[in-house]
Amino acid sequence: MDVAQHLKLFFDPGSLAFIGASRKTAKDDGDTNPVETMLADGYKGKVYPVNPNASEIMGLKSYRSILDVPGGIDMAVISLPRERLCQAVTECIQKRVKAIIIYSMGLDDGDDAEGKHIQAEAIRLAREGGARVVGPNTFGVINAFNGLNTYWAPMYTEKKIPMGAVCQSGIFSYRSWPDPPRGWGRMVGKVLDLGNLGDIDYADALEYYETDPDTKLIFLHMERVRNGRRFFEVARRVARKKPILVLKVGRSEEAARVVASHTGALGGKDEVYDGAFRQCGIIRVRDVDELADLTRAFLFLPPLKGNGVGIIGHVGGIRGMGTDAFKAAGLNIAPLSRDTLERMGKLFPSWIRPFNPLDTWPAGIIHGYQQSTEQLVDLMLADPTVSGLLFVVWTVPPDEFKAWDATDIARRAAARFPDKPICTWGYGPDSAGWQAILEKTPGLLWFPTPERVARALAALHQRWRFLQETDE
Amino acid sequence: MDVAQHLKLFFDPGSLAFIGASRKTAKDDGDTNPVETMLADGYKGKVYPVNPNASEIMGLKSYRSILDVPGGIDMAVISLPRERLCQAVTECIQKRVKAIIIYSMGLDDGDDAEGKHIQAEAIRLAREGGARVVGPNTFGVINAFNGLNTYWAPMYTEKKIPMGAVCQSGIFSYRSWPDPPRGWGRMVGKVLDLGNLGDIDYADALEYYETDPDTKLIFLHMERVRNGRRFFEVARRVARKKPILVLKVGRSEEAARVVASHTGALGGKDEVYDGAFRQCGIIRVRDVDELADLTRAFLFLPPLKGNGVGIIGHVGGIRGMGTDAFKAAGLNIAPLSRDTLERMGKLFPSWIRPFNPLDTWPAGIIHGYQQSTEQLVDLMLADPTVSGLLFVVWTVPPDEFKAWDATDIARRAAARFPDKPICTWGYGPDSAGWQAILEKTPGLLWFPTPERVARALAALHQRWRFLQETDE
Repeated sequence: MDVAQHLKLFFDPGSLAFIGASRKTAKDDGDTNPVETMLADGYKGKVYPVNPNASEIMGLKSYRSILDVPGGIDMAVISLPRERLCQAVTECIQKRVKAIIIYSMGLDDGDDAEGKHIQAEAIRLAREGGARVVGPNTFGVINAFNGLNTYWAPMYTEKKIPMGAVCQSGIFSYRSWPDPPRGWGRMVGKVLDLGNLGDIDYADALEYYETDPDTKLIFLHMERVRNGRRFFEVARRVARKKPILVLKVGRSEEAARVVASHTGALGGKDEVYDGAFRQCGIIRVRDVDELADLTRAFLFLPPLKGNGVGIIGHVGGIRGMGTDAFKAAGLNIAPLSRDTLERMGKLFPSWIRPFNPLDTWPAGIIHGYQQSTEQLVDLMLADPTVSGLLFVVWTVPPDEFKAWDATDIARRAAARFPDKPICTWGYGPDSAGWQAILEKTPGLLWFPTPERVARALAALHQRWRFLQETDE
Repeated sequence: MDVAQHLKLFFDPGSLAFIGASRKTAKDDGDTNPVETMLADGYKGKVYPVNPNASEIMGLKSYRSILDVPGGIDMAVISLPRERLCQAVTECIQKRVKAIIIYSMGLDDGDDAEGKHIQAEAIRLAREGGARVVGPNTFGVINAFNGLNTYWAPMYTEKKIPMGAVCQSGIFSYRSWPDPPRGWGRMVGKVLDLGNLGDIDYADALEYYETDPDTKLIFLHMERVRNGRRFFEVARRVARKKPILVLKVGRSEEAARVVASHTGALGGKDEVYDGAFRQCGIIRVRDVDELADLTRAFLFLPPLKGNGVGIIGHVGGIRGMGTDAFKAAGLNIAPLSRDTLERMGKLFPSWIRPFNPLDTWPAGIIHGYQQSTEQLVDLMLADPTVSGLLFVVWTVPPDEFKAWDATDIARRAAARFPDKPICTWGYGPDSAGWQAILEKTPGLLWFPTPERVARALAALHQRWRFLQETDE
């Protein structure tokens, strides 16, 4: 049984035992109860609470020991103080359990030698018995596609997303963006919390997501990696199939020390990670804002095939701001062909020569804003030097200002040029209203700043280049 | 009459003439009409449309020439093609107008010599006649406090904010943040669009805001500055009285070239600006997200008096992420005193030694999450090495999860330590719900990422240091 098969058990066990299940519920205690969570999220497999001091937990029969449970058990979750961990693992092995999640803390993550010893022993017992371990110091697994959730609270999910996450913290348990696009609601895909990396590591998780049909995009929250060589080999292969984003913690030396104390081992030089990520096509995000932006970009936009972008809007101020943003992200302001510039010039007054970034205002004065902007957006997207577009709109409240309709322009552009990513940003009093309208259109995304547009497009281009360069 | 007196006229004229007023309204045309805007926003002064082809505009009597208007006129707005600009300025001077806003484009911002010549001549005529000019290539002035709005659309404002903005683009006309804190609605304070900087410059605007009682915070969107020496002298003086934020465009050389074509002159080396801003206490923002964050921080948080911060939450993952964020922003993770660490230690299991950043989880298991987190937040804020706090919460939907109440902890902390800025960030499914609840508390702000918390606190500290170092 290889590790990918073990991971299929972790994400979709037919039966699971919860060793150390609590009798308290989230309603009557400051604590939470994962058995309650599992039932609330509608998981259809069999759930067996194990607690020698209870006969019933959350309406389910409770057992003294996992050995008393009738029939086989695919997965066990151990939530016990560290002193009782090894005994519980031994019983899991006797029961032929192949997938073990260890919640217990105070092991490699603690400050004494005893904890490190217990962790090593528990892992040894499990591996020798044919089982694999997620954790310790983890909350385990979430799978929104079958309702499995070993975390300490419900998913509260309203929509499934095709994202497979691997993390070392509960921060990334539920969803991955701070502000979901309005109307998207709460979303979860699959999550695997590796905790102390006692056994199963990032490379294993990548191999599971590599062939998982529910996963189109992979996100790694990483404090450290154990077997770097294997990880980067696997990552390079998987990255050719699915985009991989990473939030690698420990950029500062101080953070690297802190991380060591959180999950138990030193991380390694940050610059080494940086270069290695890039070489194997992993895209590094700087914070959770960028994680949200890039997730949306990879799920909803086509690739940026060249490094030249167009910027258009009816405001001169976007020229400097937009140029700063795209240059900082490593993209170029597309020069536009002579032919395009000549055609554009016919729409402008004689005293101005249009160029990219393009302020459409002077053309609007002559030809009307709706018509001239539509023509200029079209000319820009048709230009061979332009691989993607930032379209800037003035966000007057859509229901209060009907004079012209930038949404219509954006929608038509997205329909005419489905192979070029089009991003929108707007200034004005009602960005929320416009975001909601614009994001209903396939191929269009809204971002809160021009800088975030630029970084999202740069990530699309980074992946595109990786795929070209590694194409055999 | 000094320039500050002129600017008082610009922001609060008793009467104004609109030369080149259009008969079209925003409702029947792709264009907008500033006369309509002024009336819609409830400006109480006298408004005189000037258009030789109309007898009435928006229900107001229209005049053939400004010279036909009865009585005096404080301010004129000129919206005419450049060929007719100088004649209009001459008539304004004959009418003894002291404040002139020039909308006209194709001057220093155009590509021919003729435009530059016309601009120079118009400014000369105005100055010799005792008037001062805002623009050309501007939309002029917004003053939410008296309803004055010479822009091309209504303010749509719901609330006034004590922010004085100076800009060179309509992007910053209406409000300064992409996503206002929920419940704040649409906000405007005062805005002065300097356009081509033909006459009135940033230093003049700063001197106006320096003594303006409506203004507590100043924001500059700057593509270039004309008289650098005077600007930085004035800025250093004004920055001691009110925080000044700047979004300086032209970081990349390419953007600097682009900016030159937008408003007519070269900008200068970016690093020179960077150092000069810092020396005179101006705080530079990187994008509109940061502008929003710092605006809120300066309006609603106390100063960060030391460079040590505390980080606390019931999740280990914040340790690495938070440390990276604060180190990148130039702040330190406060070491905590021996006494504080000893008191904290009593709440933790024996296998863990607490430190900052603090994961409260192991203490919560023993003592309950509510009580232990409250005590630990209190201990941290009381520590002399901690000048501000990042409090991390898990954003379960407030109405679905009652087990423990982080809002109560945050509120009590803000009340007990009003001199230390407390910022919150949360991970989980309902950040919006928590932001709305937490931001009702004075002294507390919510941010979308730990990195944005760190940069906001770093800006507070930068200003605090500037005030200390320049204190005479």
